[in-house]
Amino acid sequence: MALLGTSKYAQGIGLSGVNPDLASERQTASFSVEGLTTLLDGRAEHTRVRRAVVEVIERDPVFSRENQYFQTQNERYEAAVRKAVHLQKKMHEMGWREDGPEFIYIYRAVAGDVAFLLHRVFMRSISVLGSDEQVAKWIPLATKHQLIGSYAQTELGHGTYLQGLETTAVFDTTTQEFILNTPKISAMKWWPGDMGRSATHTVVFAQLYVRGKCYGVHPFIVQIRSLQDHSLCPGITAGDIGPKMNFEHIDNGYLMLQNVRIPRENMLNKFCEVQPDGTYIRRGSQKINYFTMTTVRVSLLSDEVILPLMKACTIAIRYSAVRRQSKLNPGEEEAKILDYQTQQEKLLPQLAAAYAFHFVNNYLHKLFDRGYKEIQERNFNSLPELHASSSGFKAMLSQYCTAGVEICLRACGGHGYSLLSGLPSLYTKIVASCIYEGENTILLLQTARFLVKCFAAASAGQPVPQSVTYLAAVKPGKCPAKNKLDFLNPDIYVEAYQHTAIRLLSSTAAKLQDLIQSGVKKHEAWNQCTVQLVQAAKAHCHYITVKNFVETVEKLENKTGIQKIMKHLCDLFALHGIFSNAGLFLHDGYISGAQMDMITASYLDLLGVIRKDAVPLVDAFDFTDKSLNSALGSYDGNVYQRLYEWAQKSPTNQQISPAYEKYLRPLLHNKLSKL
Amino acid sequence: MALLGTSKYAQGIGLSGVNPDLASERQTASFSVEGLTTLLDGRAEHTRVRRAVVEVIERDPVFSRENQYFQTQNERYEAAVRKAVHLQKKMHEMGWREDGPEFIYIYRAVAGDVAFLLHRVFMRSISVLGSDEQVAKWIPLATKHQLIGSYAQTELGHGTYLQGLETTAVFDTTTQEFILNTPKISAMKWWPGDMGRSATHTVVFAQLYVRGKCYGVHPFIVQIRSLQDHSLCPGITAGDIGPKMNFEHIDNGYLMLQNVRIPRENMLNKFCEVQPDGTYIRRGSQKINYFTMTTVRVSLLSDEVILPLMKACTIAIRYSAVRRQSKLNPGEEEAKILDYQTQQEKLLPQLAAAYAFHFVNNYLHKLFDRGYKEIQERNFNSLPELHASSSGFKAMLSQYCTAGVEICLRACGGHGYSLLSGLPSLYTKIVASCIYEGENTILLLQTARFLVKCFAAASAGQPVPQSVTYLAAVKPGKCPAKNKLDFLNPDIYVEAYQHTAIRLLSSTAAKLQDLIQSGVKKHEAWNQCTVQLVQAAKAHCHYITVKNFVETVEKLENKTGIQKIMKHLCDLFALHGIFSNAGLFLHDGYISGAQMDMITASYLDLLGVIRKDAVPLVDAFDFTDKSLNSALGSYDGNVYQRLYEWAQKSPTNQQISPAYEKYLRPLLHNKLSKL
Repeated sequence: MALLGTSKYAQGIGLSGVNPDLASERQTASFSVEGLTTLLDGRAEHTRVRRAVVEVIERDPVFSRENQYFQTQNERYEAAVRKAVHLQKKMHEMGWREDGPEFIYIYRAVAGDVAFLLHRVFMRSISVLGSDEQVAKWIPLATKHQLIGSYAQTELGHGTYLQGLETTAVFDTTTQEFILNTPKISAMKWWPGDMGRSATHTVVFAQLYVRGKCYGVHPFIVQIRSLQDHSLCPGITAGDIGPKMNFEHIDNGYLMLQNVRIPRENMLNKFCEVQPDGTYIRRGSQKINYFTMTTVRVSLLSDEVILPLMKACTIAIRYSAVRRQSKLNPGEEEAKILDYQTQQEKLLPQLAAAYAFHFVNNYLHKLFDRGYKEIQERNFNSLPELHASSSGFKAMLSQYCTAGVEICLRACGGHGYSLLSGLPSLYTKIVASCIYEGENTILLLQTARFLVKCFAAASAGQPVPQSVTYLAAVKPGKCPAKNKLDFLNPDIYVEAYQHTAIRLLSSTAAKLQDLIQSGVKKHEAWNQCTVQLVQAAKAHCHYITVKNFVETVEKLENKTGIQKIMKHLCDLFALHGIFSNAGLFLHDGYISGAQMDMITASYLDLLGVIRKDAVPLVDAFDFTDKSLNSALGSYDGNVYQRLYEWAQKSPTNQQISPAYEKYLRPLLHNKLSKL
Repeated sequence: MALLGTSKYAQGIGLSGVNPDLASERQTASFSVEGLTTLLDGRAEHTRVRRAVVEVIERDPVFSRENQYFQTQNERYEAAVRKAVHLQKKMHEMGWREDGPEFIYIYRAVAGDVAFLLHRVFMRSISVLGSDEQVAKWIPLATKHQLIGSYAQTELGHGTYLQGLETTAVFDTTTQEFILNTPKISAMKWWPGDMGRSATHTVVFAQLYVRGKCYGVHPFIVQIRSLQDHSLCPGITAGDIGPKMNFEHIDNGYLMLQNVRIPRENMLNKFCEVQPDGTYIRRGSQKINYFTMTTVRVSLLSDEVILPLMKACTIAIRYSAVRRQSKLNPGEEEAKILDYQTQQEKLLPQLAAAYAFHFVNNYLHKLFDRGYKEIQERNFNSLPELHASSSGFKAMLSQYCTAGVEICLRACGGHGYSLLSGLPSLYTKIVASCIYEGENTILLLQTARFLVKCFAAASAGQPVPQSVTYLAAVKPGKCPAKNKLDFLNPDIYVEAYQHTAIRLLSSTAAKLQDLIQSGVKKHEAWNQCTVQLVQAAKAHCHYITVKNFVETVEKLENKTGIQKIMKHLCDLFALHGIFSNAGLFLHDGYISGAQMDMITASYLDLLGVIRKDAVPLVDAFDFTDKSLNSALGSYDGNVYQRLYEWAQKSPTNQQISPAYEKYLRPLLHNKLSKL
């Protein structure tokens, strides 16, 4: 054992108990941590349910993530399937229902480390796009996991541009079947989760052909593996796409179809249908086909985008209150790195952003709940706004949170780079959110297209959706702030964001118009404006986020302590955004150089103010040690002891490498044991 | 086999030959690709040697990286040791010497995938810090790998702040030995490469105590494992620190010392020595102890920072010329994504940066070669400038290149996220360069400290090192450019960078002075300025990089085609920097809003110009397919076929997962094989 470095001596010199540096951070909180947790959860009842779910899950060894950082892709997959199946049992045992209050916390409790997420998208797409008969047939089977579903949209050669999908589904009137084919390699389905090794069925998106005419992309239920022995069905080629940056536990797969025949009833036909004689009938907007993806985009924000940033902040801020380095003042002991302005400037804006995004996510959910109800009543009017909002905010939040997690990782120095910190896996996972469910740049351009239309309408005095009415309110002028304290007035900074959002949009719309009028073709002109259109779309989302944060803080009037710290975070989020995008605000002189100096001063002052509450502010996120799964981020702050203990469990310490006998021993100077 | 999805049908529908979309990109190069490769290598002879080395290495199956993306940490380590040992044989066989021309290309040829890199740092530190006797004893043993060395500086609780290291070395006059100890867990050595499983020896940095007096940090050679059986030496606890974000092939280790005795001769004593009676003698600056790290910082830039960005650009640009998505013009076929302005705006500035950094790296090497000669002659005058330059440029380049690799990864959408693209491993590796050999923020602050001193000296009319003489040239005024073409005049933009660098430094120096004069303690005042000091240090390095690029382009006057395209890249690098940091240039009105619009217009125009040569510009980097190891980046552009073929080799497709029998089979509806 001494050979592998786990001597008793080593065990004996560590820390124990709660790290006093971290404990002291908690004694001076300016607000009630429990109160803030309740605010984040919505109400105390939710907090209670969430904690109960987390406790049940974390007590069950099947859901343990203890060895996660040491496992291979095969091991991760097997564990994820095991967890998914066990979860069904657990839910039954606990009486947790899919429509019950516990359900929304289960995914968070298992930290996303389960299989069959695409199975849920399979079910959701049938629920949204399927007829009553289709729902009645498939949903009960899927609910009981008597089949495993997937969602096969993306192809090797086609992602976000759905119209370009190349898989074909040709209707055969004689047999009343669709014949599905993968006409070339770029048409192979590629990436669908749960499809590489697990799924028995999948929803395939394919170009529908009836009597030689193409009707565009439609969804079809296709069985791909036998329910008896899991062998691939005739005409099916499928497998796993191999190693990825993360998501090792998911069997993202590929799928090729060769003359695969499915019955007419397997086309999801709530909104369109092919009748037995080949007549094609459409009910409602075809855009509804994309609505599944639109809702997925919003539903993923909380668990896949905002929570990871909250976790990264928790880990990095707790660690920064324990880690000491260099001296702030000569003669004193080394300082906590959280006391350095540069460290505060890395971490605290991320913390503020996590809160800002939590609140804007609530705003989006309200928007979508309203829209979803309308769509159920076949009123599709809000689809463009929903699509633009889901696109823009998914892009903005995923980009911001990914950058934020990376900043947290790098702010922890070398130890952040160890998988045991938990930060690398948060990063490698969240970065995918910039790509999946619509690549961010393309999404921002879709938002921009909506904004350009609304801007034209607003300028012409026509009605526009509520979220963009501000576009009609173009006010020239300058920022009226006179000193740095003025920039802690939300009216001042909200106005600055609004002004900048309108300026970017109007100047780009003008450029677009000029190009077209000078004879450049419309599509080419659009392309020449896209860099600036992306800026404009981001500025719009940034403005809404700041405005929503301000409104949220205003509503906290009966919670004084919490309102005060939330106001600081709101100010910090807003001023950090101006400081980091100074050029956008200075460009037309709305903000002057002297005012930017005031903003910088207020911004840097705020860092010092929020720093005092930094640890309680992450404690309020209420993550358990197990859910963080981080040697750096645990509640007790015993980072070095934990890093050392966890490292010893690594497979690299479980064996003497064969490399020694094979390659080193023959080489080393072994006349003497000691030189 | 059909079960695992590798049917003949699947093989049959792929592409073959060179992708015509990529081939067409190469027919219109405006310059000689071979000529540019020669320019990058320095001269044609270097290109010849480099290609010969690469060919020999890549022909040898031991150096294959074919299965790299599928291997576990243990497998990667074993392969890396095997490669390192085999490399010695190969060098002997080929007659390649450590001081020969081939040597500099070997590391590039094996793509960094070998063990014993820290063994080289071990040797370098002995060469630099050791006496002639120490060099004579240890270097021959190390050269023949009769021992494996490591470099144990970083501790669990101490990284960049070397003065804070806690390991102790107490001189025992009676036995003429140093007694080394790890007094607490935070003093454990943590991270040293080659130490977790391989090293027999290491250079330990420890606080030297003689007769109760501490003389600060010194380097000591310590044997940690037996040369006969590789068991840990008495008093040694060591092992592997476990999984990391990358560097799976390296056994980064931990080390604890308990009363480990080493002879007096094992303190590296070229610059300081403890005599038998305990008298401490210093020769020259103590700062020389840090010089190893300073030189390592510069020597790593090419292979670990710039080459990865070049590789990422090669992969992403080739892929973007093959990948098609959506339509630029209705009715046409889908467009190459490289034809979208937003894609150009992601990738082409990275390409320009790769060239800019290659050239500034040449500049740094010249600076260091000169400085190293002076130090050999015990003239330490240039140390502050060398230290500031190595710090600032290491920080700036690693940060910029890391961001650049991430942009390339994300610009390839979902396929970039597959390990098979080669991009994730480039990212997870390069991100470490922001942390190791000095954390970037701390390094930038060291550069800033140097700049503040030089600025004060320059303002007082005192002489300053050549690279900062510009600080004396504070000229007020405005940018004289009248139209967008003026911004393609290097005098105009170099002046803008210089102006901004001086402004940031002088305004922050003034803030620092004001704080101190208002009674804030010096260290606290410094802390309150650090966010802005970091900005100032970056602006200095950015300015030098732009200026050096301009001077490099000027020297290409007898290579017309190459000079023209390099001029475009230089303009792009400069204007992208202004566009992306607009606030810094607009702040005091040196650049007006109207001028920023001109800059934006020129910048966006350049994207279209350089796009035409984008593929030849990455071809000139001259990477082989094997060195890129990317399914997306190969010379022939057959991306989909290669992704599909490589995925099938994944271990996830080599077995039917036990998960099916264990968890799925009992669940699935198996009354019928088909629903």
